[in-house]
Amino acid sequence: MTEFNLSRRLVAEGVGTAVLLAAIVGSGIMAERLAGDNGALVLLANMAATGAILAVLILVFGAISGAHFNPAVSLVFYLRREIAGADGLAYGAVQLVGALAGVALAHAMFGEPILQAAVKARHEPGMWLGEIVATAGLAMTILACVRWRPEATPYAVGLFISAGYWFTSSTSFANPAVTVARAFTDSFTGIRLADAPAFIAAQLIGAVLAALLFRWLEAGEPES
Amino acid sequence: MTEFNLSRRLVAEGVGTAVLLAAIVGSGIMAERLAGDNGALVLLANMAATGAILAVLILVFGAISGAHFNPAVSLVFYLRREIAGADGLAYGAVQLVGALAGVALAHAMFGEPILQAAVKARHEPGMWLGEIVATAGLAMTILACVRWRPEATPYAVGLFISAGYWFTSSTSFANPAVTVARAFTDSFTGIRLADAPAFIAAQLIGAVLAALLFRWLEAGEPES
Amino acid sequence: MTEFNLSRRLVAEGVGTAVLLAAIVGSGIMAERLAGDNGALVLLANMAATGAILAVLILVFGAISGAHFNPAVSLVFYLRREIAGADGLAYGAVQLVGALAGVALAHAMFGEPILQAAVKARHEPGMWLGEIVATAGLAMTILACVRWRPEATPYAVGLFISAGYWFTSSTSFANPAVTVARAFTDSFTGIRLADAPAFIAAQLIGAVLAALLFRWLEAGEPES
Amino acid sequence: MTEFNLSRRLVAEGVGTAVLLAAIVGSGIMAERLAGDNGALVLLANMAATGAILAVLILVFGAISGAHFNPAVSLVFYLRREIAGADGLAYGAVQLVGALAGVALAHAMFGEPILQAAVKARHEPGMWLGEIVATAGLAMTILACVRWRPEATPYAVGLFISAGYWFTSSTSFANPAVTVARAFTDSFTGIRLADAPAFIAAQLIGAVLAALLFRWLEAGEPES
Repeated sequence: MTEFNLSRRLVAEGVGTAVLLAAIVGSGIMAERLAGDNGALVLLANMAATGAILAVLILVFGAISGAHFNPAVSLVFYLRREIAGADGLAYGAVQLVGALAGVALAHAMFGEPILQAAVKARHEPGMWLGEIVATAGLAMTILACVRWRPEATPYAVGLFISAGYWFTSSTSFANPAVTVARAFTDSFTGIRLADAPAFIAAQLIGAVLAALLFRWLEAGEPES
Repeated sequence: MTEFNLSRRLVAEGVGTAVLLAAIVGSGIMAERLAGDNGALVLLANMAATGAILAVLILVFGAISGAHFNPAVSLVFYLRREIAGADGLAYGAVQLVGALAGVALAHAMFGEPILQAAVKARHEPGMWLGEIVATAGLAMTILACVRWRPEATPYAVGLFISAGYWFTSSTSFANPAVTVARAFTDSFTGIRLADAPAFIAAQLIGAVLAALLFRWLEAGEPES
Repeated sequence: MTEFNLSRRLVAEGVGTAVLLAAIVGSGIMAERLAGDNGALVLLANMAATGAILAVLILVFGAISGAHFNPAVSLVFYLRREIAGADGLAYGAVQLVGALAGVALAHAMFGEPILQAAVKARHEPGMWLGEIVATAGLAMTILACVRWRPEATPYAVGLFISAGYWFTSSTSFANPAVTVARAFTDSFTGIRLADAPAFIAAQLIGAVLAALLFRWLEAGEPES
Repeated sequence: MTEFNLSRRLVAEGVGTAVLLAAIVGSGIMAERLAGDNGALVLLANMAATGAILAVLILVFGAISGAHFNPAVSLVFYLRREIAGADGLAYGAVQLVGALAGVALAHAMFGEPILQAAVKARHEPGMWLGEIVATAGLAMTILACVRWRPEATPYAVGLFISAGYWFTSSTSFANPAVTVARAFTDSFTGIRLADAPAFIAAQLIGAVLAALLFRWLEAGEPES
């Protein structure tokens, strides 16, 4: 036996994705309540909480499930034949369920309706480009760190998304499960359900681009 | 002899918990003085100071006492038979004394009455859920890191609480000694003494839930 | 074969420098939109995104190309005979092209004209001193860490530039390719093209000073 | 030969302390210019720059001189017989000269008079207690990390001072050379020269207390 059994891996993915969404949505609610219309302070707090929890969750669950928490990441590992197709589908399913549970958890903690319909429009073409960049960058970060700096992966992912919250026009959703779940919160981090498919398409494009670039780069690695 | 003697471990727990509380309460006072009613800036400063000092204190005292600074954490290690019952009780006692001393120290540094009665109400049910989530997350972070990423534990704990300050509605007390001590400061980080018991009950529930989840997860660890 | 072939190293340098510029310029645009005329919040967000992405990019591309992303850094390694002259020139060329592409990418993500003429004046003598300090500090950080703390290099570089954004009057461009590229954005991070040459001259002076200081320091290293 | 010769160690101490002061004072000036009377934002920027540069400077110069940059730290190592008395005095001298040079450098970068007389009063007894706590905490952090977590020392020091900026009423000068030098800047980080002696006395008390506590703690270390 060389890895945790599937049930434990799925619980790790589900719980981890739930906490990730609770942190994204919860910190957005807290920040909006405290900072009102000071959007820069709200995004700063949202970034700090999201970047920090990402690093923690990968430290905690990395040894068990690989800590994907993201169907686009599971897709990349499937393309690299590092996860079986059936396992990858199961990962995606629990990631989605976990993400929705995390949104509900955030709402429950803050005394808000458990599931809400987001009304925030995010449909500018520049944002789709932002999601391609964000997801490609996230996937490259994971692939390169896992290969050359594995112990740094948790910090690198947290730092990449922290930067992405500010430098991509879409604020770096970079995750299809996160995108769907955020359609169910009518708060700072929400996205209209109608705008989600284009985001997800852009994310998948970014993930595949990163997988191709990395495959080419690693093919040139000198033998040690 | 495989560990420090009890007196040194207790001094480490007491001093560490005192500095932790001095940082929590002191940074809240400083931030309130500088930021006035800009609650987001106050919480940001409070988060930065708390997350930073937690990482430092675990780096400094981890080798001596294990750096619990938290009766809920000591309880988890007692449930895992990693600390004796009598030692655990002694840990809890010095943590509580240290926490109160830390609050007094913060007040003394800022020229305020040494002990005060907090008037800030924190009694919404969503906050109790927040404390369950915060303490369960903290305990999972410690258990998983100690097992699989021990050198990263100090950073992971600091980052988890930093995130928790924003994503839990209760701002992640996650510590019974901290909760009691914060009932004695009438400042940003205070909590009415009457509201403390429900927080502590929620913390103990969260700690036990994390211990159970982790026990099940680790039982599936592949043999290496 | 002891290193990646040149084509892959150049792609790493080009892509990395592009993402660096996208992060610098993009986060400046986002922050300006959200924080308006609160310059301190804008610089704080700009710093967080830049420092974070620098650490990530060095983690990701360090193993492939050395992760210079900066002609002044390539110059230092050339002076130390650690990169061949022809390779260094090629590095500089793709760094410049990548930097311009990154500015264009940031503008595209935010729905702005792809290339713009900066109007922000940065021509005070104190800023030239700032660029000498910033580039010398950056080069010393890289040289010392590569020698004595190689695993920490990515974090050290991100932290140095984060500090430099605040403590140098020029906000630490510290990079000729970055300087030229930022002449093509009319946003928070822009610099008038006419002001770029003096910045670049100061950067080259700083880089050479650091190389000389480090050569003297390392000459005294005790034999182990 | 087991260490760098004294001239190189002194240059490392002098240059490092100069950059430290340039970062403290320079970031304070930049933040005041950008944030005006929003004291919390000014301190946040000041903290970020100081904490970051401290970690960097210890990474860069630690291997050469031990990276004290602080007469109180050199005193602690002298009390532990880890540095000779004459060397310790020389360290203190170059730290002081470097600190003054760093203040002058910050002023030059920002186009201000090179040396100024500070008018900011810092003479409340609570601040003296703050300096005892800050310096004792800093010294404990260094002593414990050097012994049990040496690779983490740079980060621990940066994080401790970051926290101290907020949780001590004095904002954690914690360094006699820094204290004297800051008497020569009439900006956010200044301190009246008349108020410096009490700060320095408190710092020395804190350093000695930490040395005593650590000596007792380490005496109980189990044999491995």
